[in-house]
Amino acid sequence: MASSHRHKLRLDPRTREEARRRLLSIRGHVEGILRMLESEDVYCVDVLKQIKAVQGALDKVGELVLRSHLKIHVATAHERGDVEAIVDELMEVLKYR
Amino acid sequence: MASSHRHKLRLDPRTREEARRRLLSIRGHVEGILRMLESEDVYCVDVLKQIKAVQGALDKVGELVLRSHLKIHVATAHERGDVEAIVDELMEVLKYR
Amino acid sequence: MASSHRHKLRLDPRTREEARRRLLSIRGHVEGILRMLESEDVYCVDVLKQIKAVQGALDKVGELVLRSHLKIHVATAHERGDVEAIVDELMEVLKYR
Amino acid sequence: MASSHRHKLRLDPRTREEARRRLLSIRGHVEGILRMLESEDVYCVDVLKQIKAVQGALDKVGELVLRSHLKIHVATAHERGDVEAIVDELMEVLKYR
Repeated sequence: MASSHRHKLRLDPRTREEARRRLLSIRGHVEGILRMLESEDVYCVDVLKQIKAVQGALDKVGELVLRSHLKIHVATAHERGDVEAIVDELMEVLKYR
Repeated sequence: MASSHRHKLRLDPRTREEARRRLLSIRGHVEGILRMLESEDVYCVDVLKQIKAVQGALDKVGELVLRSHLKIHVATAHERGDVEAIVDELMEVLKYR
Repeated sequence: MASSHRHKLRLDPRTREEARRRLLSIRGHVEGILRMLESEDVYCVDVLKQIKAVQGALDKVGELVLRSHLKIHVATAHERGDVEAIVDELMEVLKYR
Repeated sequence: MASSHRHKLRLDPRTREEARRRLLSIRGHVEGILRMLESEDVYCVDVLKQIKAVQGALDKVGELVLRSHLKIHVATAHERGDVEAIVDELMEVLKYR
């Protein structure tokens, strides 16, 4: 699964910055759950709700990166000549998303 | 969605500790993605793979907490007399999991 | 995974009827997609949309049956004395839902 | 959401045939669940397992069609000049997959 042949493909800078910004917020959210879990009184469903919220926020980052990948790298794959490789690689990561 | 009437129900201590342990690892994983995103060379699909891995780790924490909740709180709901409330609350959080 | 020890637990009649009603509609929806696929002009994304709609409808049936199972069988498990078995079995089917 | 501007894009014949074959099997599976639900003795978790199996089979059809769409239509979008439209449309259907 080495992606060496695509060493020139890069996440575009604006998406990279936006993903970073969102992941910083996600880290904060995870730290919030860690603080919740320090309390002996924490209720299961309140933890489940927070986990679900973090999953939703990660979905958004994933969608952001996926959208950029599709526009910049997948949509140009035929010209570049790596359609099979780039689609196989993407399908692998989309499974059970 | 105040869960005031269930103020006595608590995540059991062992599950709480295990969830904390796993979330510490998840925080580390998120920080790893943040470091990846500092590089101009980062490739979209490598980010998507890491996001997917964190999602999988969060699923595991969720399953841990859910299993404990089912065993300790849902399985005793009929005796306690709050079946409707506890099941409605749980279904809300299980939707689109 | 034999559920022999739970031979007395049954899906309640109203939920069973509602699930049947919805699955008849889902069968019709699948047949609609089959008809779409007979046309040479069918467009990929239109098929994906229909598959997604059927998945959503199946989610609803699953939620219906799950809610009934939680209320009638899981919430009474402690009294019946089969908490471990019923929760393990349920967690198995909830994974990667 | 009219896809009129893409009236020339079509699901490729081999994928269409394979999708049809799988959906025929899925219809049979749904009919199997309908027969299960005719029995008064049917157990909730057995229904949930069958629904999950059908969902898995639908995922496979979706992956098949998605893979074909990516290879044939998305990977050529830049040459055709409809990158924005085809990616926006695809992201819409991938959400909450």
